[in-house]
Amino acid sequence: MLTAPRTSSGSFSRLSRMSQISFARGVPAPDCLPVDEIGECAQAVLLREERDTIQYGAASGFPPLRELLAERHGVEASRVFVSNGSLQGLVFLATHLLSRGNRRVIVEAPTYDRPLKILAGLGADVLGISMDEDGLDPDALEHELRTGPRPAFLYAIPTFQNPSGRTLSLERRRRLVELAERHDLLIVEDDPYGLVRFEGQSLPTLLELAPPGRVVYSSSFSKTVAPGLRVGYLVLSPELAAAVEAIAVSTYVSPTIFTQAIVWEFLRRGLLEQNVKRVSRLLQQRRDAMLEALERDFPAGSSWSRPEGGYFLWLDLPGGADASELLGKAEAAGVTFVKGEDFYAGPGGESSARLAHSFASPSEITDGVGRLASALGSLLGDPVAAAPVTPV
Amino acid sequence: MLTAPRTSSGSFSRLSRMSQISFARGVPAPDCLPVDEIGECAQAVLLREERDTIQYGAASGFPPLRELLAERHGVEASRVFVSNGSLQGLVFLATHLLSRGNRRVIVEAPTYDRPLKILAGLGADVLGISMDEDGLDPDALEHELRTGPRPAFLYAIPTFQNPSGRTLSLERRRRLVELAERHDLLIVEDDPYGLVRFEGQSLPTLLELAPPGRVVYSSSFSKTVAPGLRVGYLVLSPELAAAVEAIAVSTYVSPTIFTQAIVWEFLRRGLLEQNVKRVSRLLQQRRDAMLEALERDFPAGSSWSRPEGGYFLWLDLPGGADASELLGKAEAAGVTFVKGEDFYAGPGGESSARLAHSFASPSEITDGVGRLASALGSLLGDPVAAAPVTPV
Repeated sequence: MLTAPRTSSGSFSRLSRMSQISFARGVPAPDCLPVDEIGECAQAVLLREERDTIQYGAASGFPPLRELLAERHGVEASRVFVSNGSLQGLVFLATHLLSRGNRRVIVEAPTYDRPLKILAGLGADVLGISMDEDGLDPDALEHELRTGPRPAFLYAIPTFQNPSGRTLSLERRRRLVELAERHDLLIVEDDPYGLVRFEGQSLPTLLELAPPGRVVYSSSFSKTVAPGLRVGYLVLSPELAAAVEAIAVSTYVSPTIFTQAIVWEFLRRGLLEQNVKRVSRLLQQRRDAMLEALERDFPAGSSWSRPEGGYFLWLDLPGGADASELLGKAEAAGVTFVKGEDFYAGPGGESSARLAHSFASPSEITDGVGRLASALGSLLGDPVAAAPVTPV
Repeated sequence: MLTAPRTSSGSFSRLSRMSQISFARGVPAPDCLPVDEIGECAQAVLLREERDTIQYGAASGFPPLRELLAERHGVEASRVFVSNGSLQGLVFLATHLLSRGNRRVIVEAPTYDRPLKILAGLGADVLGISMDEDGLDPDALEHELRTGPRPAFLYAIPTFQNPSGRTLSLERRRRLVELAERHDLLIVEDDPYGLVRFEGQSLPTLLELAPPGRVVYSSSFSKTVAPGLRVGYLVLSPELAAAVEAIAVSTYVSPTIFTQAIVWEFLRRGLLEQNVKRVSRLLQQRRDAMLEALERDFPAGSSWSRPEGGYFLWLDLPGGADASELLGKAEAAGVTFVKGEDFYAGPGGESSARLAHSFASPSEITDGVGRLASALGSLLGDPVAAAPVTPV
């Protein structure tokens, strides 16, 4: 067991965290990170595997981890590509898919902002399809597939979506897969949050529902083990696996084999299941604190999603209030979030916000939502809601 | 201290290594890797830094490591960018530099094959400048700079070059920097091997010789600590540091913070200096074994470089013998290398080979050079040199 003495710099960073409450970044709270277990796994792999885990390795990742993930997904190990975080794998994949001439990509609107930037950097022509509480609107997608040019792929986060926290219903999952089959559409399913479910029934992934080759699946251990290890992966068709590996070889020789071996050890010890349970409990407390504070503090006309897992919820402001203006007031009041329009390729989200409940403590969340409500009150010019906001 | 029990799979991989001797990959021998010290550093950072090293971090790398590297190079920490291996940083840099319109790049001929592939993938127009035993030919470079279009940058490995093992002389370093100043040429200096010197006098880097902003410097801990940690870095101008960081954020959020923290701990404990000494001794024995075997076994008309450090030497075959044909015969005889032409953007290297002495043991090197000489004898049809090659 590792002991964890508090350093003075640690106290300082906790203090500065207290003063500005962040609902902005999708980062796990420190108590979600299993520091002792990671230390033990690091020692174990160095003892047993010796130098193989600190040597150059395969561009597609540490072979025993690929095999273990292949078993979990019921595929050949050659179809699993493990990278330095899942985003890196998505960059390789998108680079390859967009190099073949067709630059049209369909995404959910809103969607995760980093892929939007990556796609823009690769010269993609991105089209967003609207969502409701059950996720991507299949009628809007079908209309687009019938009338528009064929896209290179659809990028979707069906479960506890970033940024909205919404989950695609089972019925819509089935319909999405049918549409993809009928229109020969490749789906890229990004699923970093699926395991972090607090309540409700797990849904099958698109990968599980679709025939082989229809879905590329992406996931990560950033939310279930630790982000600083940077271990994410793709499940690909054999053809795409070869293409992605070729780009990886030229980009970084091999990924960080040592941290992939640590994750492998974590999994083979059965630590993932218990850590997912622990993390889900910690995150549920945070989500509950956020939902309760929103109910208590936010004015009529506001609405928000009620995710059963993951890191985020989506807040729609009352009366079309401007989220950019709110952000300025909120930051002055000591709380921050990401404004909705950052998650749209085109217009949209101007009166919305992504609130991450993953990082701040439950009491900070209660406090932060109060500050946010006061900032909103002052924006709306409501003398009752606009209790004086004390800058910190 | 970690004990390192031998597993049956370990014995098997040693056996298969014995049967095919590799002079192909620039990979450190297993005994170069300080497995105990890395284990101790991993524990230490988890104990002291706690969760900060397994959390998301800065896109430019673990701040204490950036500060330590900045001190070593006498620059501001904001100019140091630490990535998952140095090649990844070079990909980001080249992506940025070639996005500005000018796609012309000058390289040494021969040069490291991976950057050639990266540059080709980015659509660069690559021109190789010839080398001799003292490195890049400054007259050829000057002619090109006077008469050709201005390049976006020059990529060079001045010390123990990959693939040639050659080192740019001090006089030529000074001249190269002067030429770069006169022609407003940006130099990208790749220096992963500089610290691994067995003998002779250390030379100043181009970064040290040039005025600020003229040189981007790249190095790595793959040769001085361990490759599987994937820790490399760039020293950049403030402007380029900002551009590279922006690409990194969109590509992988943050690099592998945990292994960067391990390298930082390794450095602050003063372990780098002693490990470099140890690694240099181990590599010197291997280089000596290779030079002695070449002297003993290779026919007149062959020639090779005599590097004072690093991983590689460059072999020119006698009478223009074809290196591709030799490779076929050599692999059948149980020894492999990389043929010279892989290190040229255009024609060149058809009768040359890169021999890595870094991985095989001294006795394997002696054996492997013998096999290579026999394969060459059989290629040249020399009945004396062509002693029967026993396939393994």
